[in-house]
Amino acid sequence: MSTVNDNPAISDTEKVSSPLWAKDLPLDAAIHRFTVGRDPELDLALYGFDCIASAAHVRMLASVDLLAHSDASALLGALQTQYALSVSGAVRIEDSQEDCHTALEAALVAATGEAGKRIHLARSRNDQVLVALRLYLRAHLNELSADVLALARVLAQFADDFKTAAMPGYTHMRKAMPSSFGLWAAGYAEALVEELDASVGVYARIDRCPLGAAAGYGVPLPIDRAMTAQLLGFAKVQRAATDCMNSRGRHEQALLDWCVSVANSLEKLLWDLSLFSTAEFGFLQLPDSYTTGSSIMPQKRNPDVIELARAKCRALRGISETHRTIMTGLPGSYHRDFQLGKAPLMEGVQTLGELLRVVTSLIPALKVNQGAAKAACTDELYAAEAAYQLVAGGMAFRDAYRIIAAQVTAATFVPPVQHEMSVGHIGSASNLALEQLSAELDAHQQTLKRRGDCYQHIARTIWDAS
Amino acid sequence: MSTVNDNPAISDTEKVSSPLWAKDLPLDAAIHRFTVGRDPELDLALYGFDCIASAAHVRMLASVDLLAHSDASALLGALQTQYALSVSGAVRIEDSQEDCHTALEAALVAATGEAGKRIHLARSRNDQVLVALRLYLRAHLNELSADVLALARVLAQFADDFKTAAMPGYTHMRKAMPSSFGLWAAGYAEALVEELDASVGVYARIDRCPLGAAAGYGVPLPIDRAMTAQLLGFAKVQRAATDCMNSRGRHEQALLDWCVSVANSLEKLLWDLSLFSTAEFGFLQLPDSYTTGSSIMPQKRNPDVIELARAKCRALRGISETHRTIMTGLPGSYHRDFQLGKAPLMEGVQTLGELLRVVTSLIPALKVNQGAAKAACTDELYAAEAAYQLVAGGMAFRDAYRIIAAQVTAATFVPPVQHEMSVGHIGSASNLALEQLSAELDAHQQTLKRRGDCYQHIARTIWDAS
Amino acid sequence: MSTVNDNPAISDTEKVSSPLWAKDLPLDAAIHRFTVGRDPELDLALYGFDCIASAAHVRMLASVDLLAHSDASALLGALQTQYALSVSGAVRIEDSQEDCHTALEAALVAATGEAGKRIHLARSRNDQVLVALRLYLRAHLNELSADVLALARVLAQFADDFKTAAMPGYTHMRKAMPSSFGLWAAGYAEALVEELDASVGVYARIDRCPLGAAAGYGVPLPIDRAMTAQLLGFAKVQRAATDCMNSRGRHEQALLDWCVSVANSLEKLLWDLSLFSTAEFGFLQLPDSYTTGSSIMPQKRNPDVIELARAKCRALRGISETHRTIMTGLPGSYHRDFQLGKAPLMEGVQTLGELLRVVTSLIPALKVNQGAAKAACTDELYAAEAAYQLVAGGMAFRDAYRIIAAQVTAATFVPPVQHEMSVGHIGSASNLALEQLSAELDAHQQTLKRRGDCYQHIARTIWDAS
Amino acid sequence: MSTVNDNPAISDTEKVSSPLWAKDLPLDAAIHRFTVGRDPELDLALYGFDCIASAAHVRMLASVDLLAHSDASALLGALQTQYALSVSGAVRIEDSQEDCHTALEAALVAATGEAGKRIHLARSRNDQVLVALRLYLRAHLNELSADVLALARVLAQFADDFKTAAMPGYTHMRKAMPSSFGLWAAGYAEALVEELDASVGVYARIDRCPLGAAAGYGVPLPIDRAMTAQLLGFAKVQRAATDCMNSRGRHEQALLDWCVSVANSLEKLLWDLSLFSTAEFGFLQLPDSYTTGSSIMPQKRNPDVIELARAKCRALRGISETHRTIMTGLPGSYHRDFQLGKAPLMEGVQTLGELLRVVTSLIPALKVNQGAAKAACTDELYAAEAAYQLVAGGMAFRDAYRIIAAQVTAATFVPPVQHEMSVGHIGSASNLALEQLSAELDAHQQTLKRRGDCYQHIARTIWDAS
Repeated sequence: MSTVNDNPAISDTEKVSSPLWAKDLPLDAAIHRFTVGRDPELDLALYGFDCIASAAHVRMLASVDLLAHSDASALLGALQTQYALSVSGAVRIEDSQEDCHTALEAALVAATGEAGKRIHLARSRNDQVLVALRLYLRAHLNELSADVLALARVLAQFADDFKTAAMPGYTHMRKAMPSSFGLWAAGYAEALVEELDASVGVYARIDRCPLGAAAGYGVPLPIDRAMTAQLLGFAKVQRAATDCMNSRGRHEQALLDWCVSVANSLEKLLWDLSLFSTAEFGFLQLPDSYTTGSSIMPQKRNPDVIELARAKCRALRGISETHRTIMTGLPGSYHRDFQLGKAPLMEGVQTLGELLRVVTSLIPALKVNQGAAKAACTDELYAAEAAYQLVAGGMAFRDAYRIIAAQVTAATFVPPVQHEMSVGHIGSASNLALEQLSAELDAHQQTLKRRGDCYQHIARTIWDAS
Repeated sequence: MSTVNDNPAISDTEKVSSPLWAKDLPLDAAIHRFTVGRDPELDLALYGFDCIASAAHVRMLASVDLLAHSDASALLGALQTQYALSVSGAVRIEDSQEDCHTALEAALVAATGEAGKRIHLARSRNDQVLVALRLYLRAHLNELSADVLALARVLAQFADDFKTAAMPGYTHMRKAMPSSFGLWAAGYAEALVEELDASVGVYARIDRCPLGAAAGYGVPLPIDRAMTAQLLGFAKVQRAATDCMNSRGRHEQALLDWCVSVANSLEKLLWDLSLFSTAEFGFLQLPDSYTTGSSIMPQKRNPDVIELARAKCRALRGISETHRTIMTGLPGSYHRDFQLGKAPLMEGVQTLGELLRVVTSLIPALKVNQGAAKAACTDELYAAEAAYQLVAGGMAFRDAYRIIAAQVTAATFVPPVQHEMSVGHIGSASNLALEQLSAELDAHQQTLKRRGDCYQHIARTIWDAS
Repeated sequence: MSTVNDNPAISDTEKVSSPLWAKDLPLDAAIHRFTVGRDPELDLALYGFDCIASAAHVRMLASVDLLAHSDASALLGALQTQYALSVSGAVRIEDSQEDCHTALEAALVAATGEAGKRIHLARSRNDQVLVALRLYLRAHLNELSADVLALARVLAQFADDFKTAAMPGYTHMRKAMPSSFGLWAAGYAEALVEELDASVGVYARIDRCPLGAAAGYGVPLPIDRAMTAQLLGFAKVQRAATDCMNSRGRHEQALLDWCVSVANSLEKLLWDLSLFSTAEFGFLQLPDSYTTGSSIMPQKRNPDVIELARAKCRALRGISETHRTIMTGLPGSYHRDFQLGKAPLMEGVQTLGELLRVVTSLIPALKVNQGAAKAACTDELYAAEAAYQLVAGGMAFRDAYRIIAAQVTAATFVPPVQHEMSVGHIGSASNLALEQLSAELDAHQQTLKRRGDCYQHIARTIWDAS
Repeated sequence: MSTVNDNPAISDTEKVSSPLWAKDLPLDAAIHRFTVGRDPELDLALYGFDCIASAAHVRMLASVDLLAHSDASALLGALQTQYALSVSGAVRIEDSQEDCHTALEAALVAATGEAGKRIHLARSRNDQVLVALRLYLRAHLNELSADVLALARVLAQFADDFKTAAMPGYTHMRKAMPSSFGLWAAGYAEALVEELDASVGVYARIDRCPLGAAAGYGVPLPIDRAMTAQLLGFAKVQRAATDCMNSRGRHEQALLDWCVSVANSLEKLLWDLSLFSTAEFGFLQLPDSYTTGSSIMPQKRNPDVIELARAKCRALRGISETHRTIMTGLPGSYHRDFQLGKAPLMEGVQTLGELLRVVTSLIPALKVNQGAAKAACTDELYAAEAAYQLVAGGMAFRDAYRIIAAQVTAATFVPPVQHEMSVGHIGSASNLALEQLSAELDAHQQTLKRRGDCYQHIARTIWDAS
């Protein structure tokens, strides 16, 4: 978004009398800019993937004799060069080139001449962008999963470090039962393990190859779709050409929905940090490097990082919903409307990555005020346990509950002498099962590593048609 | 929502002078009604699940000697009775009982006396509603999956019936390439198979047992959480008590996100039906039973069913987002805010079910105007094929494209004589791979059947502690 | 939403083998139910308005000689009867009648015979529902405004009662500057005045009459649209018939957007109450009647009313967005999709009304812990004032700020001796300008009263054609 | 959003083993970047407004003797210089400067030395950004209103040009009644007039001055808030300092809600254009400059501009909702979360502006196929009129309706001979009341002009303290 020179204060009255759409541009240029939008910037994130997918397409065309092997070789060499440029950040897409697909084809024609004019046989920009996006989704889901895993690790470590540090457990933001910093952190770590589990299903959904669907109706040529899917490491071919086109937005949304679910857990954690680090609660202290001052009040240290991270959780929900709103509401098949979905997709992916990394850096830096938290574990936290002791003596729970409630009201309640939890069931403060958590994280790490290795293998070998 | 007697036109001025919150009620009753909300109505959908989960809890309590076996037997009998009442639709929850949990406990006390006062030992309403919701989610995901499968079947049948019926393929709502009714329907069927695949991941996320988390901090009693999880057929225990509480809303949302994804495909299909059945397109005719008349225009037959179904797709997005908005934005642990999530959850589940069933009934009743659709396959649809024929003669695709484009502009374009697709790659109109689709559906049907059998087995055997 | 008998646990496997859409219904009945939806329930809120608007239509038809005066008299009498039944809550709309318009026409035919068959001349159900909704919106905006005004009054009273009661002012949920309960409450009261100001613009938007637009293209008859607009008390005719139809959803959304803005202020207030009433903050105490207990913890008093009210603020945002999602995304003119917008509209209106009334009842019942709040006004709140005193001595603010900040860091900061705000600018704790607030509320009360009188006048006189 | 170098395909495995948040940055720099976010870019749009508001603040401080007149003069000169730089697009905000407020203060200190360190007396960055945003909102609402007015003008002109050009009127996307291109366009023009009416209420809401609220609790200094409000041309002071802070997001949202309402009308118009310009409908033809080709199909001209504009209508809904989600869900007072609201606010404002300007340029370029549209006005459009002719002969409407309906079904229907609408009521195709529309637009243009003149006057004179 360009906001430079955005000075309506002085341009208002001119505007009223000026019907022109884009004042400084002739009509064609103005419309070109409107249709191009942010593609030249956003498509940089797709350029490398387009190179890889195009290489698979070239190899397939050659294998079914729709492209001469000499042309294929030239194209693969040029694609490898473009990929290397993309990895090094040297690619630029001009406004006049519109998007990564035109820019790439132009580069190929420049490098290979006639061969470059042959590469678009048997495909459309529609399946070209679909497959590039699919590779983008696959790679970013894997990367974000790695970020989730890293955060789960530091939370598990925190839980282990503070597994005996008592704190009040809250419900309704009111003191409820005895808890611990360990149980607090272990809960968030387990939520992230669940997200890693869920990411497997999202990955499977994404892991199908749309290349060959062309504009949504296939091509009257004997292309080998299984071959391109296999070369790109996809688990399966997305068969019906119509479904390929109809899935624009669907897979992106699956990733975003997952991102939002992850962020919703982070939001709770950040809210907890915000509350527990107030002077009034006082259980945690934020490191100075994560706070900032006020412009008017000399005494203040504000938890800006936490607040911004919390707001990003809400922003991510909005971004995901913006994507959904843009990508729905239309008949089947391709519509240009879909172009606008790329911005919220990429913004959402980036937002979650930032969020995960900032929280991961913060957790080990938190200072736990164990004394204050312990002191806050006041008698009434043990009211349920006291009722249980009456039950142990034979009383029905509902009767025991009423007796203890009456004691609390009358201020005569005395907590049980031995109120440490001697027998801890799984998932309670005294039985966090962190080894199990750790084993689950190890298993996910193996999966992520295996996928990453696969991507690297493809990026090394796809250029070689022999 | 009660809208009876909602006549602001006459009550306005009284209102201005009346500060009372609920005019006809004393304060306590008004607040009771505010807090109870729609629970007495909505919780009927949870009552049976609460019975089953409570039976598991009772059996576990008895097994660890926290409940006498005689009490357990009495409670199991009473729970089975309540479950049967629930299944037969005979349960009513009074406003004074607030929700299904209170109503059930009251029924148990009435039936078993002292034993009924012992059942709430070692649990809280927090984990009680969590596990009931979890069972609800599990069962409804399975049921909705069956509905998705049923629709995929009729679409696959439609695709088979009309696999040779030509129609224009559209992009940008403009004629693009040759297509067929078979390819159109097969695409939607495949989208639904993908949703069935995805439902497996959602199911796995849901399939963990929160019972025993109590208020989010466990209980100081030696309960056996693995036992209740196993009795209820869950794949695993959701361990950390804090995570159990933090997951309120998370699993519901996972189901709703899936529902929305399914509905987004239906929306495209319904939009297609709406367009293709206009007089202007004329490819399809809606059966009379799915249209209605106008109050002013004697000639009209309006596609109301399609429009309402399409609107329900949008409504479902709103409902899901309402659920998300309600269930997020809070610190960790339980807050009463969560109660309001039940209404959009249940409304979303019901909306998708209705949608799927009405579309499933409609597809076989569609009348295909094969002649009109074939006639609409005008010459320009074959421009890409004509370019490919030039390529076959050795020309680069980009050059062939320009030559054909010039012919079209000059109105000299003549389509290739033999323009039927002799070599059909997978996923094109001439190679729909419907057997593969069918095999995938069969596999899913087995999974759904197995789960359904498991639920029935639990509902028959959970009452027997011996 | 019907959830009775919703027992998927036992019906699952049958479902898999049953392709029927609504098992117990023949197709026509099932489709009828699908299209009718919740109209018989929701339309009760429109029935009375439909009577009034129909009376205006009848009088206009008679005045331009499209209806005999004897028919008009008969119809007006029957409409008045139906209106009275509606006001008394005696109307029922059968499923077979679909909606209020059919039910009303049936009642008129039953009461007047042939005359009843003449009333639908020169109108369509499209403009009939539009005008009924417009009257609904107008009346409910006025009623909700009265509720807003009532809450602003109790907040202004609270501000006056506690205008000298000190409390810390927070930013970032951290202590910032000296404040007072008076300033806290006066801020919310002023926000509500702004909403009342804004409601005037919303009202003006709604206050235009669509009757006569028919199905969106007018009628080839010499109807007098100005007359019906005037009879119904509208400020103007909504002229273009196409715009009338295109405005379905637009005016409803304007009301809902306003409702959401009001609720967003309430949300802040409720969050404040939630925080300030924790033991950790301790500035406010909720009356017992607004709290509830826990099923597991005998000691607890939970702020359920506040939490549910806070959640309703979020729910309202979701409901409003659901309405927007349903009512957009379509070409111009009428589509049956619009029917689904009535439910979220009415749910939103009801939600805000409940919210306003429960908060209005709560504010006067709050117990302020003045001592605790005063004690929480610790020295650092006066750091900015101390810097200002240095500025008074000639120092630049930025230098003064650094000196005081260093003192605070070094724990040598001593607050200014005389730190009460002697010179209070407008809008500060010592100058709340409550008289001005009160005058603004009085002015709005006059407006609301005048509108309410107008509605009553119409409801008394519209039936008299002479 | 930076997407350069975003190549996860190759960085994945490194990521798994790298816990660092921002790989290339030390912690402090990484956190600085996280907190700064997009402010250096976005705040350019606020810089000029901050200059103007700061000038008012300086003049007020001098007038109440909190600033020496020599300092005031120096500051006003420097502020005028900065404003001129901003207008000319020469300002840059460095990452290290965080935002426009710090950048501006740094520039003032550089230019005026000691005086620059005195300007922040009696204000906080909180009210500083509030007042700058308020000026931004005010100016952009006026500018967007001018854009709305310009579009309404071309629509009114189109309506006048084609007021006798017949076309079918549709409901449910099915032919319904006779209509005209004039009535089609006049409806959209009237919708925009309603939005201009509504903008007056939005403007009034925004038109209150928050300067002096400081951090939300005022300042213990005798500032003159009425003076700054008057200097900046605000209609009133936003009094309670707490309300000022609580209004962050509220006024922005009021503008965005209005933007969305405008866009919702544009969406209908764009959908109509999309449909009516298909070959199947064929009533309109898009100018070539607004269409683009396909990469695979040589024959295609796609309506990309219309589709992108339509998608921007949906995107705007998402952007507005993102803003709402970010700015709500928090207790009262300031939280750093609010910073993130600037991006969707500015993106929303820019999106609507682009939309309005591209549609305004398109309308006069549309080619109307009058012959085809006239030919599409087939007999059944006149069925209602035929029923009305029977009514004229004494029959009840319901009986006439049934007779004509039976004729249509039996294909014996013959339309009335004289079916032109001789008596056209207001808002029908034969009585568009365009003069009235024009007068309304003239009145709004005067208002917009007056406001624009006021802004210019302020921008010329605010720098002069004498």
